[in-house]
Amino acid sequence: MDDQIFKLDPRLEESTAVVGHLPLSVVLLALDANYPWCILVPKRASIIELHHLADEDRQQYAKESGYISEVMAGLFSADKINMAALGNMVPQLHIHHIARFKDDAAWPNPIWGAVAATEYDAEELSSRISRLRSALACDFFTASDQVYL
Amino acid sequence: MDDQIFKLDPRLEESTAVVGHLPLSVVLLALDANYPWCILVPKRASIIELHHLADEDRQQYAKESGYISEVMAGLFSADKINMAALGNMVPQLHIHHIARFKDDAAWPNPIWGAVAATEYDAEELSSRISRLRSALACDFFTASDQVYL
Repeated sequence: MDDQIFKLDPRLEESTAVVGHLPLSVVLLALDANYPWCILVPKRASIIELHHLADEDRQQYAKESGYISEVMAGLFSADKINMAALGNMVPQLHIHHIARFKDDAAWPNPIWGAVAATEYDAEELSSRISRLRSALACDFFTASDQVYL
Repeated sequence: MDDQIFKLDPRLEESTAVVGHLPLSVVLLALDANYPWCILVPKRASIIELHHLADEDRQQYAKESGYISEVMAGLFSADKINMAALGNMVPQLHIHHIARFKDDAAWPNPIWGAVAATEYDAEELSSRISRLRSALACDFFTASDQVYL
């Protein structure tokens, strides 16, 4: 039965903070202060590829991805949103949403392999998370620091 | 009126071959023989971000992205599909769909910045395009080497 219950991959859990929950996905913040970087993880067990989500979940995912992108673009006045589903190292389906800026550490390149992650200091992290929670606030978002509601 | 008519960015046109058309997107093959690498470009003028597509187009895009991913995964027996909307250099909305293999040139890293593009030889290119066209064949796909139908 275990493979039928959603469980966050420990590598994702270690490298992120929980921002909250959308109906399908848990919203994580990647612990790299170089970029505002959210990760959506659909709470479905054993899904590796986006195209393996059930039709209904795919449509819901499209809405959630659009919502998080729009909120991040507005909140951070981003020059571009970068979105990617890679998963070569951590197979559990997780989709990166990154606010990019013309003066950020990797611009105009993709962030992967560009520069080493920078740690958040505690205050900066807690401020980023609360700003995200305020901006995401709506009737289908639940702010939480828990992976499992 | 010009900004209301879809026109493929010349940088995309130069670096790809046209495979054909889905209802919303033109399907391009990136001219890098390192990976089977398709690019979907929704045929809408002046769209930069995925979340700026109209709702109906977003849903159609989700279908087309799922379809191309599934076809590529099957046709190439890929270990993973990598999908990304970046656009920091070429702003026109275009979404990468790349078949990845445990023995490919960049595995397990993302392909960007990993190795220089490898040219296809003519025979290899034409064979890859015809295999893709056969695998994509269905009532909503039109094989074509033209950007504009």
